[in-house]
Amino acid sequence: MKTLDIHTTKRIEFIDITSQIERLIHQEKIEDGICVVFCPHTTAAVTINENADPSVVRDINHQLSKLIPEGRGYSHMEGNADSHIKSSLTGSSLNIIVEKKALVLGTWQGIYFCEFDGPRRRMVYVKVK
Amino acid sequence: MKTLDIHTTKRIEFIDITSQIERLIHQEKIEDGICVVFCPHTTAAVTINENADPSVVRDINHQLSKLIPEGRGYSHMEGNADSHIKSSLTGSSLNIIVEKKALVLGTWQGIYFCEFDGPRRRMVYVKVK
Amino acid sequence: MKTLDIHTTKRIEFIDITSQIERLIHQEKIEDGICVVFCPHTTAAVTINENADPSVVRDINHQLSKLIPEGRGYSHMEGNADSHIKSSLTGSSLNIIVEKKALVLGTWQGIYFCEFDGPRRRMVYVKVK
Repeated sequence: MKTLDIHTTKRIEFIDITSQIERLIHQEKIEDGICVVFCPHTTAAVTINENADPSVVRDINHQLSKLIPEGRGYSHMEGNADSHIKSSLTGSSLNIIVEKKALVLGTWQGIYFCEFDGPRRRMVYVKVK
Repeated sequence: MKTLDIHTTKRIEFIDITSQIERLIHQEKIEDGICVVFCPHTTAAVTINENADPSVVRDINHQLSKLIPEGRGYSHMEGNADSHIKSSLTGSSLNIIVEKKALVLGTWQGIYFCEFDGPRRRMVYVKVK
Repeated sequence: MKTLDIHTTKRIEFIDITSQIERLIHQEKIEDGICVVFCPHTTAAVTINENADPSVVRDINHQLSKLIPEGRGYSHMEGNADSHIKSSLTGSSLNIIVEKKALVLGTWQGIYFCEFDGPRRRMVYVKVK
C-alpha cells in the first residue's frame, strides 16, 4: 500500500490526483491488475470525472451543495454534517483496471480527491493487486 | 466468500458491521490484499462513514429521505421505490485495503449496512483477495 | 481485460448488461475472484438494482433528473453538466464476487449501464482477478 499526501486549501475543492497515482503504479511490480484508491476520511471522498474542462467539477460541487446545504438543521454539532453526507453519496473507494503498469481510464477521465470540509491535510491510500 | 447475517429492526437504519467484518478477515489465510464488501439486496446498500457520533448517520438518512421521499408519485407499485433509488445512490459494494489481516480504515471510519426498506433479514458478502 | 460494446438509443437509459458480463466471465480462466466492471465515460455510469420490474430503473432516472435537472444554470457549456453530475453520484465502477465462474448476485440484482447523455456508442471494461 502506498500513501498520497494532499493539502487542500478551501472548504470545498476537487483535486486531480491522476498523475500522482500513475506515478505510484509505475513503481509497482505488478504489470496487470486492479488499483484500489481509498479515502480514509469521513468528510472527503474520491470520484472519477472529466478533467479537460474545470467547470465540470465546479458544477458537481455547486449542485451537491444545493442538494445538501451547509449547516442547517442537522443533528451532528460540528458544523460539517453536509460534508459527511456528501462523502457517503460520492463514495470512499474507486477501482481502476491496470494494464502494463498504467491506469486504463477513458479519454476524458481524471481521478479526483473530493474535499468537503477543508482546508486540511489529507491522505489517499493506493494499492495494486 | 463469507456471509454476514443481519437482522434489521426499522424501515430505515444504518448498522455498524465493522467488527463483524474484521472478525471474518482475521480467519482468512490472506495477510495483505483487498476486501470486497457486497450487499446482495436492491433496497439496501453499504457505506463508510463516521462511527464515533451516531448523529452523523442520522443526518445522512434524514437528508437522503428529504431528497428521495417515501411513497409519492413513483411508478414501482410496491411502495419502496425510494429504497431502490437510495440503494443505487449509496452503492452496493465497497473496497477496503487489508494489511496484516486487518482492515486499513481511517480513525473515524466504520462500515455500515444501510437498510432502506426494513425490517428484514439481510446478508452481506465478504471476500478477501 | 475484456470490453463490452454498447449502443444507447435515448438521452437517458439504463441497459441491463448482466448476461453479457456473465458470458465474458465464463470464458475466463479464473474460477473464484473479484469482477471489476468499469465505465470509461464521464457522462455515464454503472449500477446494480432490480431487474424484475422495469419501473424501478424508470423511478431512479425520474428522481435523479428531478434532483439534477437538465440544462439550467450550469457553468459547463456543452449542455450535459447534469450528465456529469449524475455520473459521479452513481459511480464509475462496481465490484462483484465471482465463484465457479459465475457472478454472485442477489436474486433481484441486475447490472446496469447508465446512459445519461445518449444516444452514443459506449464501452464497459470487465476484468476478473
